[in-house]
Amino acid sequence: MQIRTLSTLECTKLLTANRVGRLACAKNGQPYIVPFYYAHADNHLYAFSMLGKKIDWMRSNPLVCVQVDEHSADRGWRSVIVNGRYEELPDRIGHKVQLDHAWSLLSRHADWWEPGALKPATSSVADHLPHVFFRISIAEVSGREALNS
Amino acid sequence: MQIRTLSTLECTKLLTANRVGRLACAKNGQPYIVPFYYAHADNHLYAFSMLGKKIDWMRSNPLVCVQVDEHSADRGWRSVIVNGRYEELPDRIGHKVQLDHAWSLLSRHADWWEPGALKPATSSVADHLPHVFFRISIAEVSGREALNS
Repeated sequence: MQIRTLSTLECTKLLTANRVGRLACAKNGQPYIVPFYYAHADNHLYAFSMLGKKIDWMRSNPLVCVQVDEHSADRGWRSVIVNGRYEELPDRIGHKVQLDHAWSLLSRHADWWEPGALKPATSSVADHLPHVFFRISIAEVSGREALNS
Repeated sequence: MQIRTLSTLECTKLLTANRVGRLACAKNGQPYIVPFYYAHADNHLYAFSMLGKKIDWMRSNPLVCVQVDEHSADRGWRSVIVNGRYEELPDRIGHKVQLDHAWSLLSRHADWWEPGALKPATSSVADHLPHVFFRISIAEVSGREALNS
């Protein structure tokens, strides 16, 4: 098996082509990981979440890491790691385009990691307190590929 | 989709039945995630790694999080999260049993996330500085299941 480093462009393509990643945040030195659905656009990963531990933690420390991987039939794989910053997006004028874009991509998936995701196009996120629309601003991206030789 | 909390026993069974997880560590508030292979035994997750960023970070801050999930054909899923502590295991008398157990489980997989894993049964880990045998001592485990209803 040969390992090589992915270019920034290859990392970006992998992020765009996938929807499921793992998101890690940290509080007082303790990391926390959750699977999450995202949509990649404009150097950001957009996502919806219910309120809870990860939102609490990211509000107090916005430094996060996202990991996304994909696998090929010959047991090779690619893995991309994003270092980024959590940004909460209130449901107000200014984020409508991103909200609609993220929703259009994410709503194609029936198997949400968290239940009760709302359709923001028909109801205001702000009206439903448990839900948060946020994005990860990508500060740094890196990736590796393993090829069976 | 219905969500329910997994019991500790169900979480433990899921950890035992799987080999691939995501490991997160943190440094100065910045989390870092990598996919890793592990073997579960005696309330620990055993693993091998080359030296590098994650080992450096876990040596300076042993608090880690591991996430493991599995998926069913009907798009349901189970996800388990472990909070634990990194412990490095030198290749000396006292860890031979765990080393052999971990190796016997992990060596069945050809697709290591990192290349060049050694077979500890035939050569001393300490002779090959880039490789580390470690375990995550499980402090806390929790999990959720999503069922399509």
